[in-house]
Amino acid sequence: MEQKKIEVSLSPALFSSYYHNPDCNVVIVDIFRATSAICTAFIHGVKEIIPVSTIDEALAYKKDGFLVGAERNGEVVEGFDFGNSPFSYMNEKLKDKTIVLTTTNGTKAISIAKEANDIYIGSFLNLNALAEVLIEDERDVLIQCAGWKNRFNLEDTLFAGALVHKLIASPKFGNLADSAIMASQLYTLSLPDMFSYLADSSHRRRLQRLNLDEDIRYCLQQSICNVVPVFRNGVLVEKNAFVSI
Amino acid sequence: MEQKKIEVSLSPALFSSYYHNPDCNVVIVDIFRATSAICTAFIHGVKEIIPVSTIDEALAYKKDGFLVGAERNGEVVEGFDFGNSPFSYMNEKLKDKTIVLTTTNGTKAISIAKEANDIYIGSFLNLNALAEVLIEDERDVLIQCAGWKNRFNLEDTLFAGALVHKLIASPKFGNLADSAIMASQLYTLSLPDMFSYLADSSHRRRLQRLNLDEDIRYCLQQSICNVVPVFRNGVLVEKNAFVSI
Repeated sequence: MEQKKIEVSLSPALFSSYYHNPDCNVVIVDIFRATSAICTAFIHGVKEIIPVSTIDEALAYKKDGFLVGAERNGEVVEGFDFGNSPFSYMNEKLKDKTIVLTTTNGTKAISIAKEANDIYIGSFLNLNALAEVLIEDERDVLIQCAGWKNRFNLEDTLFAGALVHKLIASPKFGNLADSAIMASQLYTLSLPDMFSYLADSSHRRRLQRLNLDEDIRYCLQQSICNVVPVFRNGVLVEKNAFVSI
Repeated sequence: MEQKKIEVSLSPALFSSYYHNPDCNVVIVDIFRATSAICTAFIHGVKEIIPVSTIDEALAYKKDGFLVGAERNGEVVEGFDFGNSPFSYMNEKLKDKTIVLTTTNGTKAISIAKEANDIYIGSFLNLNALAEVLIEDERDVLIQCAGWKNRFNLEDTLFAGALVHKLIASPKFGNLADSAIMASQLYTLSLPDMFSYLADSSHRRRLQRLNLDEDIRYCLQQSICNVVPVFRNGVLVEKNAFVSI
């Protein structure tokens, strides 16, 4: 049996250099904070999330009466309901609602992967649940890091490494691209204290300036939920909820 | 004194996302094997090297009587004088000659960086000499890895990490991008035996299939020369030779 391949694309600008197999599963990662916020929204009962790339698209939805989150450069865009802090999704008002979201890096990463077989949302929060789905699916996996404005970032890479660790625990996976080898080794280095490890990272410094240490600690918690958001027909839905319909 | 910045662009496709300061020094890295071959050519007395991106350009030079090296996918392109094996540049016939070179990844990386202040050629072979020039220059440094067809690769990243180590030994440097932090940590992991460390890397497997283990061992030697090739007016020349003219 040939083992399935694991590749990590370290920036949205590299997606097309890695993506050659439409039958693969793509995992979108934006740890600080879009994909952590998306998982949190589903934990708290959001029905579906429409990711959009531009502020203009988000505004159009807002005019149509949707609840809309918009973040740029780490802050809520003026005039919108919330940004990408996971804490703003812990809200009873969002239960069973469709919400719209645009972020600096994360939603852009989702849009470039649109052609792939299945696009999953990955964060430390749903690490185990996501790994189980990918192992069950038994397809090549391409982990797409959102990065920061197309640059490499440490936290998305650490998550990619954590996911590589989970996947290669199954004999179905074993064919690692150089980027997957690197991510896996970096993740090992970051243990046991990822928060301290990230002290010098550009993104943590950026969020610390915005007083978002609490968000960071929240986003680094591992496997606190079983939600696996998947992109279907332009909308993010919870995989299990979707399957049971 | 504000410390100078060190960034690592892990793929030619990311250059424009990192490059914002024309006053920085760019270091082009293609360890297996273009930049190692270029350093070797200068060690053996080549006068200058004209890097070109396409086989067509290389053919035009060949028709004009130039000695031309051309490599694609690890092998010498038919009809050309040599490829990018460093051993093919250890040749008395090349002494004081102008040669032309096109490679799969390395020469492309040089062409995208053309606007930068100074573009240097980096390899393990000239690590110390290059670091001395960069420390003396005291500008921001952007290390551009050639990668493999725009993908991340381990060996170029290890070199970037080795160079970061040398630069931050000087108090002039200290402002590291996430990519520079990662490269530096990966380099530490690869010690003391980089050859074994790279055993699973995609490029080493590729070169092993072509029986190029000897090339690999050669390219991983550190600081065996003092040449620092620099790109000036479309041509690579040896920095010290250039200065003394």
